[in-house]
Amino acid sequence: MRTESGRPGGSDDAVAMTEVAPMRWDGWGDPARADALPFAVRSLLPLLLGRVRRPAPGPALDEVRLDDPALTASDLDAFRALLGAEHVRTDAESRIRHAGGRSTPDLLRRRDVVQAAPDAILAPGGHDEVAACLRLASERGIAVIPFGGGTSVVGALDPERGEQRAVVSLDLGRLSGLLDYDAISAEAVLAAGTTGPEAERLLAEQGMELGHYPQSFRYATIGGFAAARSSGQNSAGYGRFEAMVTGIRVATPTGDIDLGRSPGSAAGPDLVRLFLGSEGIFGVITEVRVRVHPVPAERVLESWTFPDFAAGAAALRHIAQHGGGPTVIRLSDETETGVSLAQVGKIGKALAKGASVVTVFEGEDVAARRARTAAALQAAGGTSLGEGAAEDWLRTRFDGPYLRDALLDAGVFCETLETATTWSRLAGLRDAVTTTIKSGFAESGRKAFVMCHISHIYPTGASLYFTVLAPLGDEPLPAWARVKHAVGDAIMSAGGTISHHHAVGRDHAPWLAEEIGVTGIRILRAVKRELDPHGIMNPGAVLGSVAVAEHPGE
Amino acid sequence: MRTESGRPGGSDDAVAMTEVAPMRWDGWGDPARADALPFAVRSLLPLLLGRVRRPAPGPALDEVRLDDPALTASDLDAFRALLGAEHVRTDAESRIRHAGGRSTPDLLRRRDVVQAAPDAILAPGGHDEVAACLRLASERGIAVIPFGGGTSVVGALDPERGEQRAVVSLDLGRLSGLLDYDAISAEAVLAAGTTGPEAERLLAEQGMELGHYPQSFRYATIGGFAAARSSGQNSAGYGRFEAMVTGIRVATPTGDIDLGRSPGSAAGPDLVRLFLGSEGIFGVITEVRVRVHPVPAERVLESWTFPDFAAGAAALRHIAQHGGGPTVIRLSDETETGVSLAQVGKIGKALAKGASVVTVFEGEDVAARRARTAAALQAAGGTSLGEGAAEDWLRTRFDGPYLRDALLDAGVFCETLETATTWSRLAGLRDAVTTTIKSGFAESGRKAFVMCHISHIYPTGASLYFTVLAPLGDEPLPAWARVKHAVGDAIMSAGGTISHHHAVGRDHAPWLAEEIGVTGIRILRAVKRELDPHGIMNPGAVLGSVAVAEHPGE
Repeated sequence: MRTESGRPGGSDDAVAMTEVAPMRWDGWGDPARADALPFAVRSLLPLLLGRVRRPAPGPALDEVRLDDPALTASDLDAFRALLGAEHVRTDAESRIRHAGGRSTPDLLRRRDVVQAAPDAILAPGGHDEVAACLRLASERGIAVIPFGGGTSVVGALDPERGEQRAVVSLDLGRLSGLLDYDAISAEAVLAAGTTGPEAERLLAEQGMELGHYPQSFRYATIGGFAAARSSGQNSAGYGRFEAMVTGIRVATPTGDIDLGRSPGSAAGPDLVRLFLGSEGIFGVITEVRVRVHPVPAERVLESWTFPDFAAGAAALRHIAQHGGGPTVIRLSDETETGVSLAQVGKIGKALAKGASVVTVFEGEDVAARRARTAAALQAAGGTSLGEGAAEDWLRTRFDGPYLRDALLDAGVFCETLETATTWSRLAGLRDAVTTTIKSGFAESGRKAFVMCHISHIYPTGASLYFTVLAPLGDEPLPAWARVKHAVGDAIMSAGGTISHHHAVGRDHAPWLAEEIGVTGIRILRAVKRELDPHGIMNPGAVLGSVAVAEHPGE
Repeated sequence: MRTESGRPGGSDDAVAMTEVAPMRWDGWGDPARADALPFAVRSLLPLLLGRVRRPAPGPALDEVRLDDPALTASDLDAFRALLGAEHVRTDAESRIRHAGGRSTPDLLRRRDVVQAAPDAILAPGGHDEVAACLRLASERGIAVIPFGGGTSVVGALDPERGEQRAVVSLDLGRLSGLLDYDAISAEAVLAAGTTGPEAERLLAEQGMELGHYPQSFRYATIGGFAAARSSGQNSAGYGRFEAMVTGIRVATPTGDIDLGRSPGSAAGPDLVRLFLGSEGIFGVITEVRVRVHPVPAERVLESWTFPDFAAGAAALRHIAQHGGGPTVIRLSDETETGVSLAQVGKIGKALAKGASVVTVFEGEDVAARRARTAAALQAAGGTSLGEGAAEDWLRTRFDGPYLRDALLDAGVFCETLETATTWSRLAGLRDAVTTTIKSGFAESGRKAFVMCHISHIYPTGASLYFTVLAPLGDEPLPAWARVKHAVGDAIMSAGGTISHHHAVGRDHAPWLAEEIGVTGIRILRAVKRELDPHGIMNPGAVLGSVAVAEHPGE
């Protein structure tokens, strides 16, 4: 166990994190941090995957070829009149930088010479300019893809035109800042384009923290968190992002909406929840009101080992169902534990067979919560390992995507996927997904290495997060598409949700009808028809092009 | 402070509460419990209100006159073929018993000889029969009012036909029981017509509790809690009802929907939330999946006094924003405290000037949470009074409506209304509502006595619950309608929500457009058009007949 003084998540860390360079166009994060594969990983790979072959490098930025922009001079003039010429961009670099998100297929597509990209990038300066862009695009038949931090891993940013004649990326980067702060009610209004680090820096000036730290934190935006129903690493302490949201402002092609007058309302259905998870198909979230809490004064870390995943999962279930627990709790299965320990190299091989748990405590009543959690973990068969592994996790918790870039360069396919279900179905779901991934890769003669962890717990269930490594092979995109399709089906059969926090985007749209039923799809389509009658908003996202049977009797 | 052994809310209490007689047709609750006004209240009334005049008694049940049922023989035959003749009722008593809810205007209307009532009562025996009733009613142009416990206080059960030729009440009483229970995931599926006490009795057999105790608990149903976004007395500990709901099943005129595969899903917008608070305008909730917790082993009670409401509210705010607090916490303002003490007569007059707080602790870690809460209340200027007032509150917590019946018989108008807002707007909202009620009654020359309490707290704000007493006067219904209208406007101006937990029904529909905006109303109407294209579901509820301007540009 380790106690840090000072202000952990909310200020020092956040300020340091704010100074981030623009994201690499063909990979994750700060270009200066891109690096070769660490020696420990490199030496592990042959053991896990057999021989891998280094692929040919992708094109340089100026070698990428795009179609000519499909917008007319009249279109561009109209948007320039609205936003100013400098906020309507059609240069190749801007278009390439807004051409997609950061899934592994997105990154593999960046290695092609011919790429798809939006026809222009619009950068409105505020809510009213967003609304005006949507009205204009709706009149002119131009599709609009809202763009926050560009970190979607489910295809939500693909430059899909649908039935429109052109497609623009609506970059919310200029909508940044703390718009309002109510110290008494502990509520803050943040512009949707504010990045995670910038939001925490601004809140820290008030002594407050939002406390939402997904792995995409350094680049992702407040509006993106809302649009995708994000969940951060501190979810056990502060809840999913949707639990933090107390209000939103949205611009749609046919009118604005401002929701969330009061906590605890029973004034009809909670329409905030209709926009959380809507991923831009109804309109653009421009402002998000959130509850905030004081920057935690201390942080206590402790890691644990369990005989196996099942024992660790039972311990996490106890904690979720009895409350008063940690801010962060994560359980890595035996394979993930083994690899982490091999990389970290600090803890003897003898422990590498178990399942490891990381706990972090911040905020109120840390000592009591830690004691309560430790007692529960111990009673469930856990052994404390002190701060070691938890400290390593904390230090590197936003760095996974850098490692993926290095793996891809080395010829290793690396992707993550996630789901959630009730506690009673959790083991079955984990087995089904793992088996499906392995047998999917085996079909193309490749050995896949699958790791899994639980990182979000609820009284009734938990998330499962999988990391897949395999030799890249010759046709990685279609091969992965086949595996991913089989996994989606396996998740549905085993009673999981198609996404716990990556959202639907385009990649998960084929399973949404099974998840929410034909009537659910009809509801979303009816809302979309009302707010976006010409269908310009993020065509193909969430609702996809799934055929939905007409309901009987109509 | 008092510690009770045994199982508090979930089993002994609940079992005792299950044995409830059918509700009085013209008042609240068990007819055997109706009683004259207690002496303490009777002696207080002249001091508070001046002289009141006893009204003429209302008609006996068999003296009430209804219109003939508007259903044809063919309609009745069709429903009888579906449900069995005994489950299609058109007798006067059944119709009168389904003619409305239990607001004070509802009760005053029961004192008229000529009354409005639904044309028939349908009592389906399960989900499929509900769905078949809705399809049949939709084909035949018959409005359907879903009916659970009959406890709405916002006009959600008014027998309004809308544009249909007849109206039926769909009584869900036969949909009762624990349909599924998952001990590992701590989830239970309850049929929508299960009453609060019956649900707790069934769960207690599994050692579990739902823990939802609104004042309507003894009669209200699980489906009603969901449809109205109910909030119970234990909300500080277990959350609002919507926080307990993990899934729902709904029958609509055009198809079923089954939502909530998994906790923590990001599979598009959370459509469960579109049905919570929908009060039957889209369809009928037939099953509700809820998270449950072990029946608490102990209960600790403690009451407190504060110098004034503002000091007490500041203390509650601290507790809401710092967590780990009580299961129940309530703050009565000076007037409510004074009247309670006069009734209870246990505590000296010297304390009657302050504001009183009741705290109850159940479940996990009771001693630590009580100590933490006590320290916070003391630091905020509170003085512990031991268990006294808290015990009185606990014993009588479902009995308020009985007192209202006695007051009405004695010529005293008595009604409650409620709202919520952020902590920073709370004092202004309370003042605005109190002033508006008093000046509204003053216009008809009557003195009103207004009491207020906070009974639900959130990190960003709290509820306000008002009880109004005034001389009944000659035209109580139109006089109250004027006051209620002014109060609705005052709530909107002061930044409150039109309802914290009573819901919208028909009484609050005029303010919904201001609360959720024109775009919000358009969304609800679009969903209703999709699911209920003929407009048979609870016409006039939630959406009312408010004219909504067409959106521009369409």
